[in-house]
Amino acid sequence: MVPHLRTALTGALSDLEHKMLEATPMIERWLRMEWQEHTPPFYSSVDLRQAGFKLAPVSTNLFPNGFEHLAEEMYPLATQAAMAAVEKYCPDARNLLIIPEAQTNSSHDLQSLAHLANILRLTGLNVRLGSFSDSVTQPTSLSLSDGQTLVLEPIERNGRRITLDNGRFDPCTILLNNSLSSGIPKVLENIKEQIVLPPLHAGWTVRRQSTHFDAYDAVVKRFAKFLDIDPWLINAQHSQLSNLDFNLPASTEELSHTVEQLLKKIAKKYKEYGIKDKPFVMIKPDAGMSRAAIKIHSANELKTLEHSWLHTMNSNKNHHIVADVLIQEGVPTIERINEEIAEPIVYMIDRYVVGGFYRINAESMDETINPHDTHFKSLPYIKQSERTKEDLNSAYNRFYSYGVVARLAMLAASLELEQTDPNPDFN
Amino acid sequence: MVPHLRTALTGALSDLEHKMLEATPMIERWLRMEWQEHTPPFYSSVDLRQAGFKLAPVSTNLFPNGFEHLAEEMYPLATQAAMAAVEKYCPDARNLLIIPEAQTNSSHDLQSLAHLANILRLTGLNVRLGSFSDSVTQPTSLSLSDGQTLVLEPIERNGRRITLDNGRFDPCTILLNNSLSSGIPKVLENIKEQIVLPPLHAGWTVRRQSTHFDAYDAVVKRFAKFLDIDPWLINAQHSQLSNLDFNLPASTEELSHTVEQLLKKIAKKYKEYGIKDKPFVMIKPDAGMSRAAIKIHSANELKTLEHSWLHTMNSNKNHHIVADVLIQEGVPTIERINEEIAEPIVYMIDRYVVGGFYRINAESMDETINPHDTHFKSLPYIKQSERTKEDLNSAYNRFYSYGVVARLAMLAASLELEQTDPNPDFN
Repeated sequence: MVPHLRTALTGALSDLEHKMLEATPMIERWLRMEWQEHTPPFYSSVDLRQAGFKLAPVSTNLFPNGFEHLAEEMYPLATQAAMAAVEKYCPDARNLLIIPEAQTNSSHDLQSLAHLANILRLTGLNVRLGSFSDSVTQPTSLSLSDGQTLVLEPIERNGRRITLDNGRFDPCTILLNNSLSSGIPKVLENIKEQIVLPPLHAGWTVRRQSTHFDAYDAVVKRFAKFLDIDPWLINAQHSQLSNLDFNLPASTEELSHTVEQLLKKIAKKYKEYGIKDKPFVMIKPDAGMSRAAIKIHSANELKTLEHSWLHTMNSNKNHHIVADVLIQEGVPTIERINEEIAEPIVYMIDRYVVGGFYRINAESMDETINPHDTHFKSLPYIKQSERTKEDLNSAYNRFYSYGVVARLAMLAASLELEQTDPNPDFN
Repeated sequence: MVPHLRTALTGALSDLEHKMLEATPMIERWLRMEWQEHTPPFYSSVDLRQAGFKLAPVSTNLFPNGFEHLAEEMYPLATQAAMAAVEKYCPDARNLLIIPEAQTNSSHDLQSLAHLANILRLTGLNVRLGSFSDSVTQPTSLSLSDGQTLVLEPIERNGRRITLDNGRFDPCTILLNNSLSSGIPKVLENIKEQIVLPPLHAGWTVRRQSTHFDAYDAVVKRFAKFLDIDPWLINAQHSQLSNLDFNLPASTEELSHTVEQLLKKIAKKYKEYGIKDKPFVMIKPDAGMSRAAIKIHSANELKTLEHSWLHTMNSNKNHHIVADVLIQEGVPTIERINEEIAEPIVYMIDRYVVGGFYRINAESMDETINPHDTHFKSLPYIKQSERTKEDLNSAYNRFYSYGVVARLAMLAASLELEQTDPNPDFN
């Protein structure tokens, strides 16, 4: 089930959209059966790229932080999905603790946090916010631009439990909205009596983009066979390289070679489908959601880059002198809102799609580091009264294929977390 | 979790509302724990009466047939809840068969059916409608006032399964939207390989109002103790009488005595709470959702009634000459919309409240048999932009207490279905 939201897509339905819409009962059943075997992450968001000829995930976030961009009408759906998740993990929960990013300076981050806390409060839980940051030594009020206030409290370790307020707030569930990119703090280690969601190994200390996309390859292989489509239509190809050190010519050579190989593979596919676009790849840090991605159209371009860019690949900020990178097929985006590039992000809680929004910019996120002028547009419901046969977005749920591909990426995250679980027997 | 919908209530919050709103995390937890032990019905609707001094269910329908009265914005919530239910009962489902009432002549019934089918289709299931009526011998198109068409197909028995279309449509789940008040048809007996929801013993052939309200008494006893309230505040007292035959003076006497006793109990409670209203009771058939309820303010009034009214008590239409009746405390309603009486009905799918509406009439449903001029008003979401401190309906979720009481009635239905299950070991 994917809510019928309005996408920026216009024009005729693609073969892929047709196929997915027609196979809806089979696809929903396929996914239901998968969730019998695998546990979805508590929440997730998936960045998609819609090229028209293909639709693929390029990034899966297990600590989504854009809840404020969802349309207001999506919140009941999000709350109901969160209720289903809470029931599964901790039916006797009264209290839930959210641990946000240590640095929640930006007004966006605070708004997202306020919305997330509100979604969870509406399930009927007492929700409080805790920090393990050294700078939070007492309850600290954070003012939001809309006049709301959030209170961040220092977390305490009580034996094998985390509490707030001298033990007076004892949560059943600890929800991380913190990607742990600076490492797992000691205070969060060896918590056994409370449920930490997502598990600590979902943080960027352990998580790797390449592990995720390897899992996605496996998911897509099965799904594409089931739907009888070319897996490439929903998958951006990728390679991974470890321990690159650009002081060594061997590393430069290795990266150059890998980029070339991947560009060749893309070119071959473009030829097969008669696509005239120029192939490109994205080089990203293998750990972290950093925006420090670099767009490359040929191995030669690598030579013109400053060596310093490698440092931007090193997202975990521990000053490694070597870098692990993901080299990912670039997927052009055809979606436009007011002539600006619109890149969709799909939000899920438990196994339910609960909404989405576009990140809009004059240039693609893939073009620049830290783009300015980025803005966001929520995907709204299409109301019965708005539906016409002429409007393909209202006659068909064009958001359906986005919901399918995003859920395949979520399923990949489930497999990834199973594979990387340091204590699989405890589950 | 109860969505924040706009009720017709105005004025200060009652103590009961205050208490429930404050105890939300405890109440939600209490309910979650109950659903660990008991399975909610696939769907249900509960008629409530809001007296201000008390809020109580007066009828619980396990075959809800007013889906067309829900606000459009509730359908995604209903679909997501239905998806959770389908996953529980039959994750490998592709096909779902709805069996509607044999006589779906009214435009309301057809609209409700169309909405129900649509909610279920949006979960990604193939949904078709089947009839066991002798008059449906081939696929029959039913035209709706809005131009839609529903197709009703004859159901076939294939061994231990029900199918359509010469076995080509083989559902995993059979959803009854038929209260079986004319008995359980042979074609539905002994289905073992498919899931029938709700189970056959939820039909009025087996079900009794009194069994439901006995179960509700038990639920309320525990809940009221937990919340530390007088159970009467959320419960209409009731008595039950079997095998009444009004040709016998003993039956008249028995009914008269029971009515008198119940009126005395109500009067005592009214005195305790300083309520000036005149106590009344409703006499209803113990089987069926018939509107043939009679309002009685004193045992004397019984004498003035024609004996023929007893026949209206006999809802299962099998021409029994004796009747089983429920005598229920009358709960006056203070809710008004445009000066007309507004009686709320809360809709639930699985354990989720998915919306509600008011049945509106110049007179209460409890006043007349077959009231004319009845109309319906959906309860809409209260949007963020509409919220003000002055509007108590937007500052607080006044629908919350409705959602709590309705879910207690749903829980009672779960207990009732457990108790009346003819084959408890099969589950």
